[in-house]
Amino acid sequence: MQQLKERILREGKNLGNGILKVDGFINHQVDPALMDVCGQEFARRFRPIGATKVLTAEISGIAPALTTAFHLGVPVVYARKHKPITMPDQVFLTLSPSHTKGRMVELIVSPEYLSGGERVLIIDDFLASGATILGLVRLAQTAGAQVVGIGALIEKSFEGGRQALAHLGVPIESLAVIRSMEGDRFIFDD
Amino acid sequence: MQQLKERILREGKNLGNGILKVDGFINHQVDPALMDVCGQEFARRFRPIGATKVLTAEISGIAPALTTAFHLGVPVVYARKHKPITMPDQVFLTLSPSHTKGRMVELIVSPEYLSGGERVLIIDDFLASGATILGLVRLAQTAGAQVVGIGALIEKSFEGGRQALAHLGVPIESLAVIRSMEGDRFIFDD
Repeated sequence: MQQLKERILREGKNLGNGILKVDGFINHQVDPALMDVCGQEFARRFRPIGATKVLTAEISGIAPALTTAFHLGVPVVYARKHKPITMPDQVFLTLSPSHTKGRMVELIVSPEYLSGGERVLIIDDFLASGATILGLVRLAQTAGAQVVGIGALIEKSFEGGRQALAHLGVPIESLAVIRSMEGDRFIFDD
Repeated sequence: MQQLKERILREGKNLGNGILKVDGFINHQVDPALMDVCGQEFARRFRPIGATKVLTAEISGIAPALTTAFHLGVPVVYARKHKPITMPDQVFLTLSPSHTKGRMVELIVSPEYLSGGERVLIIDDFLASGATILGLVRLAQTAGAQVVGIGALIEKSFEGGRQALAHLGVPIESLAVIRSMEGDRFIFDD
């Protein structure tokens, strides 16, 4: 999506070690108009798959998942990384390695809001190694739900996430695919 | 706001100790259409104060803050509770007691996205004791920004947050004000 790519070119910062800083419009400060346009675009691409729920991981997935769910007219569930006291004792929990934290994090969903028969669209801010998204896939599958699509705002195609998710056989859509980052020179696919 | 009150009456659960569970439409699963209507309503009420930025705290403040910022046409910044590696070493940080966690949490904002001259509207999911919002106020003031308004989806007026914020002399708007919760019987103001 041209608008997102231009924003990355203008404001993205390569911090090295594969870390792309987009804190000015996605990860700390958020541009709500851009997120809305991205949500519209995800909704357009995924409408045919008939998702009944959007699933994401806190924290940075929430904004694009919310706007996508809004434009699809379905609820969104965000997996928590710490179990709040409002959640029942029996939960779906999986561990996922966090690239930016350098350790395993928990991903937790309450069985109250994810169940068998759901058609789940996973939306996240980044598709890098695919580890977080695979964690969300495990949660959905444990709940008996079917993952029907995966969307990311930004894919770093050089980290292999798309290959790691290919066995799922579902459409994978990224709005900006970065093939390489050298210094602050970003090369996009197409 | 009638729509939010009805949803609380229908799905809210009083877990005791002042904890109101709204995980089905705000805090874990989110109803994006409801959040959009709430954002429109905040935007309508706060448009005259001329906010240049919306400030919230991760995680549950993000959805209503995003929709409010969208309808006001300004960016939103969410204070982080853990400093990510993309953030500079020099940050604004304050400590705030968390009611639901039973301990102090950090609230962190990067000086890149909050600065002198900004007119800040604080939006959060709950106004209870006011402690989290006072933490956001301290962050804004440390940045040299001016807090011009405070909005919460749900106010528990029996916990005194409005009194704790009164000295700021800014408009405080809550879309549903709960005066008392006894069992699952919720009494709203007005």
